Amino acid sequence: MKKIINKPENFIREMLEGIYIAHGNMVGYAGGDVHCLVSKQKKAGKVGIATGGGSGHLPLFLGYVGEGMLDGCSIGDVFQSPSAEQMLAVTKEIDSGAGVLYIYGNYNGDIFNFDMAAEMADFEEDIRVESVVAGEDVASAGPAVPGEKNTRRGVAGIFFAYKCAGAAAAEMMPLDEVKRVAEKAAANVRTMGVALTPCIVPRVGKASFEIGEDEMEIGMGIHGETGIRRGKLLPADEIVEEMMAPIIKDIPYVKGDEVAVLVNGLGATPLEEQYVVCRKVSNILEEQGIKVHRYYVGEYATSLEMAGMSISLLKLDDELKRLVDAQANTPFFKQFG
Amino acid sequence: MKKIINKPENFIREMLEGIYIAHGNMVGYAGGDVHCLVSKQKKAGKVGIATGGGSGHLPLFLGYVGEGMLDGCSIGDVFQSPSAEQMLAVTKEIDSGAGVLYIYGNYNGDIFNFDMAAEMADFEEDIRVESVVAGEDVASAGPAVPGEKNTRRGVAGIFFAYKCAGAAAAEMMPLDEVKRVAEKAAANVRTMGVALTPCIVPRVGKASFEIGEDEMEIGMGIHGETGIRRGKLLPADEIVEEMMAPIIKDIPYVKGDEVAVLVNGLGATPLEEQYVVCRKVSNILEEQGIKVHRYYVGEYATSLEMAGMSISLLKLDDELKRLVDAQANTPFFKQFG
Repeated sequence: MKKIINKPENFIREMLEGIYIAHGNMVGYAGGDVHCLVSKQKKAGKVGIATGGGSGHLPLFLGYVGEGMLDGCSIGDVFQSPSAEQMLAVTKEIDSGAGVLYIYGNYNGDIFNFDMAAEMADFEEDIRVESVVAGEDVASAGPAVPGEKNTRRGVAGIFFAYKCAGAAAAEMMPLDEVKRVAEKAAANVRTMGVALTPCIVPRVGKASFEIGEDEMEIGMGIHGETGIRRGKLLPADEIVEEMMAPIIKDIPYVKGDEVAVLVNGLGATPLEEQYVVCRKVSNILEEQGIKVHRYYVGEYATSLEMAGMSISLLKLDDELKRLVDAQANTPFFKQFG
Repeated sequence: MKKIINKPENFIREMLEGIYIAHGNMVGYAGGDVHCLVSKQKKAGKVGIATGGGSGHLPLFLGYVGEGMLDGCSIGDVFQSPSAEQMLAVTKEIDSGAGVLYIYGNYNGDIFNFDMAAEMADFEEDIRVESVVAGEDVASAGPAVPGEKNTRRGVAGIFFAYKCAGAAAAEMMPLDEVKRVAEKAAANVRTMGVALTPCIVPRVGKASFEIGEDEMEIGMGIHGETGIRRGKLLPADEIVEEMMAPIIKDIPYVKGDEVAVLVNGLGATPLEEQYVVCRKVSNILEEQGIKVHRYYVGEYATSLEMAGMSISLLKLDDELKRLVDAQANTPFFKQFG
């Protein structure tokens, strides 16, 4: 296990201490617990937005707490959900009377704990909480059954839900409207990933899965969940074609649509390779008559030192375009508009 | 070789095409050559700042072209210097009558070509060019001999020279003053790195060096240049202690100093680990009575998918503090001030 860490059991605490040291002007923590990260910027009457989830995905989740994005984030150990009590501590801290929206990924542990935290906030604290569960991974979509639960995992595309809902809250929209925006963004984003190497969870000390020296796995999840197809590593353009086809036909994205594109590195894959991917994504969208409003390229949702990347598309209308374009200033994501 | 690329010989061209697609609102290229990246923002009478160097280090070098930072960058193949002609094409494009400052790393190929480009700019184009060669890697410092050439390699700390000189040029300082600022920043920054794994140059197809599964190399350069000590991988806190001691005594940084800190990931090392490092850097500086004005943590100068990190300190005076704090907006680096 080749990592720059101390004792594995102290990894997340020490990482968080580093975050508060480096970004103490922007973020602090609630309830005396470093796992309960909150923004230092408060605005009376603004809807609070909280997220949360396991560690190991920086800048997801806590990196998006700041101006124009999120107000708080509860943080678990590597790939582990934080507790309902930690979520509640964040909720209490970020509520300014307008209620709180939870936006989090479609994982059972997170759903269970966020639901419990929402109930406690309501009963014990009289804070109104609404929730949006984001799940947009095309690889984990089950057969579409009306009324059935979304089976899609939440991966990098949740960034767009944060971005749009965060901008909506900054515009002082009320809770129901911020929720509507988050749901719209979550419903209009689709993602597909590819993994080349596993990562190692420090407490476990060995690779999360095995994969051949010349292999890739299309559709793998950010915790190493099984993908759609494992095979020989292909040239970049062919990998992108194989990933883009199911993304495009999922919603579907059609000629005349406008989208925002997110090319996301999973950890070890260099930024150079992500731009090679970006180029091919652009070519495919151009062929299909889909216009790109804005590109994001870089590490937005990682899996420790996993090599690989994901591609996300967000279908835009005028409202989402305005919200995507809004200014944001967090420790990990800054945009001038 | 596990990379998301097409043909190795097309890697850099395709990467650059991706950059122009994603950031075409901010950057374009000069002389019809994608290797000659220039800012789309122009301001009459502003000193132009150019850099350049081999590819494989994103966001170095080209990622820092934009508002409040650099105006142009010539880009070579992976770990290869761009040509003097490419540097000249950038120089011609970014000169607005106030002259051009070159800031680049202390590597022989770059020095040779930038010197030739400066001569051509002077003789053929009547553009005044000044140069600052940044070299701050403590591991490659030879014995200090007055009047002798600096042997230090330029690594991640060049970011601070870009930041301060870029802010000085944005304040409309004249060429001699912008050069003075760049020299001051370069003289007051020191860096030390550690590598855990090699990277693979695509055209070469094999690891740039070999290192044991349980080994690290302190002081290794960003092209795999030999470091100071190879040994068993230590806990993060011990690695940081071993790196910080020679950095601090080099200038030296002393009690009462104020510094900016850059913890830089070399490629595959997760952001989480970089924050564990940041925490220990902060502890050591606090013990020494050195105050931290600002932290930067993330990938600022990489070596493709190499695992490892570097630590840089910049000693600040009031002028450098103001310039470090100034706003910047480039494809890869954004700061609100």
